[in-house]
Amino acid sequence: MLSEFELIKRFFAPLSPQQPDVRVGIGDDAAVLKMPSRHELVVSTDTLVEGVHFPQDAEPQKIAYKALASNLSDLAAMGATPRWFTLALTLPKAQENWLKRFSEGLKACAKSFQIGLVGGDTTKGPLLSTSITVIGIVPVGDAITRSGAESGDLVVVTGTLGDAGYALKLLNTFSAATPNYFLDRYWRPSPRIGVGMALRKIATSMIDISDGFSADLNHILEASHVGATVNVEQLPLSDELVKSLPQQEAIELALSAGDDYELCFTVPPTHLAALETIFSKLNCRYTQVGKIEVTPGLKARHFDGNIHPLVTKGFKHFK
Amino acid sequence: MLSEFELIKRFFAPLSPQQPDVRVGIGDDAAVLKMPSRHELVVSTDTLVEGVHFPQDAEPQKIAYKALASNLSDLAAMGATPRWFTLALTLPKAQENWLKRFSEGLKACAKSFQIGLVGGDTTKGPLLSTSITVIGIVPVGDAITRSGAESGDLVVVTGTLGDAGYALKLLNTFSAATPNYFLDRYWRPSPRIGVGMALRKIATSMIDISDGFSADLNHILEASHVGATVNVEQLPLSDELVKSLPQQEAIELALSAGDDYELCFTVPPTHLAALETIFSKLNCRYTQVGKIEVTPGLKARHFDGNIHPLVTKGFKHFK
Repeated sequence: MLSEFELIKRFFAPLSPQQPDVRVGIGDDAAVLKMPSRHELVVSTDTLVEGVHFPQDAEPQKIAYKALASNLSDLAAMGATPRWFTLALTLPKAQENWLKRFSEGLKACAKSFQIGLVGGDTTKGPLLSTSITVIGIVPVGDAITRSGAESGDLVVVTGTLGDAGYALKLLNTFSAATPNYFLDRYWRPSPRIGVGMALRKIATSMIDISDGFSADLNHILEASHVGATVNVEQLPLSDELVKSLPQQEAIELALSAGDDYELCFTVPPTHLAALETIFSKLNCRYTQVGKIEVTPGLKARHFDGNIHPLVTKGFKHFK
Repeated sequence: MLSEFELIKRFFAPLSPQQPDVRVGIGDDAAVLKMPSRHELVVSTDTLVEGVHFPQDAEPQKIAYKALASNLSDLAAMGATPRWFTLALTLPKAQENWLKRFSEGLKACAKSFQIGLVGGDTTKGPLLSTSITVIGIVPVGDAITRSGAESGDLVVVTGTLGDAGYALKLLNTFSAATPNYFLDRYWRPSPRIGVGMALRKIATSMIDISDGFSADLNHILEASHVGATVNVEQLPLSDELVKSLPQQEAIELALSAGDDYELCFTVPPTHLAALETIFSKLNCRYTQVGKIEVTPGLKARHFDGNIHPLVTKGFKHFK
């Protein structure tokens, strides 16, 4: 059996980056990190627990990739540039092969999004869980919060909605043949870091879609003290989802399933041209799905043209 | 049952500080924090698991206090000033009364050491655990690492050693009457923040004693590529410990028990006068216990004057 120190050294210390902004990385009491001037810090923590946030006995590479990517999505939602992260890993036993594969998944995601592991803790516990704290930077005053949406702003989402939710549905029913497209959307979410950064000074509010589109848009509405009407027929669905499910079910997933890690943001209509430029450069799909209104509450315009209040069904713990 | 959002709002959002350096606190995708110029970040993450790092069914106030205080000790060991922390809390069920008491303990510690809760995550899991990430600041270049000890430096420790280890021993044997002095030393460690900050530019290396004095001093020796001889009779023992245990057992605890959260540091002998001034101002005990040598390895000079290699028995997981 490896001791805690040996474990850390063997698998995680090599992930400590040779970044010029890391004065002291893994291996001391704490990391020492250099801040560029005229920037603010952006910090977020998220825990994933086996059996709660992802299926049991999943491949360690996938767990690691998804854990870091979903955390990075919170930085994307603030318009921040990822810099450093710490990992608190709890696991029932220390198996070399498992840890090797876990560290590979972590490394792949860290490399893709240029974020360096600078610390962490490995502890024994009854169930696998990861708590990751990501730290990003943003020029002073440029962070995009949930609270700036104003009446008349457009509601825009990136990518397509419901794919990860459909994957989870298939995984939970032990379907032998979950298509790779959906598995990828579930296990390898694409935190929209580039989009988030490009929307500084353009988006009036932003959030990432982790709990489900309607629940997350509702967070923007509450924080901004406004309402919105969403056009159900405009919700962006992937061709794969449209082919796989009856329309009503696909829309249900797009509205309420979590794990998509796309961005939902608001912009004044005057910025539509700017959006077109930004998104074509980043090769990312974006869709206007609704509009911000003065009257609080979230409403949906259905295919028949009728407007109804939208009940949010986001992912909630302890319920 | 409360939803995750209600939980966070009710118990943890009030801990989000009204600090001028917190632009966005709890309640957005991430916190946005203002950095003073010419400072570096100091970041550390630690997990405590029930039954592993503290006894089961402990009082929630105590768990919270100890979890934050032990993390703060890592900042102290770098000479950093605490600023912000995030909390990832995993628990089997959300009980209002438990959460209320937990948040009280957290608040008491956060207030004592002037650190603000700026984010976190509450998740359901089979066993109580906390992962805290603390963030501090230090003037550029002033962080004290483990790697600067040089031959001839004195080895110094703060406070007294072995008290928390004795408390844990009593707690583990279900002793009805663990004296309050020892309980306090175990549950309410005093991270030596003021001492750590005062030792900037004075200590050549520093570590906090969390795994046990000899194991932690060994980390300094390995990182600095030096050795040390420690005088066993100089190890600082509390009057309470001396009264409670035979000398040999007390010394065993002082050498190898964890959880003390005192500081161990090295200084050139020329700084002895500076130490005297610093520690008398801070009203903190300090003791010179040994000396750094060129030859690698940790040795102990016993009462009889004989010198033997010291086997480290620090706390290790997965062993």
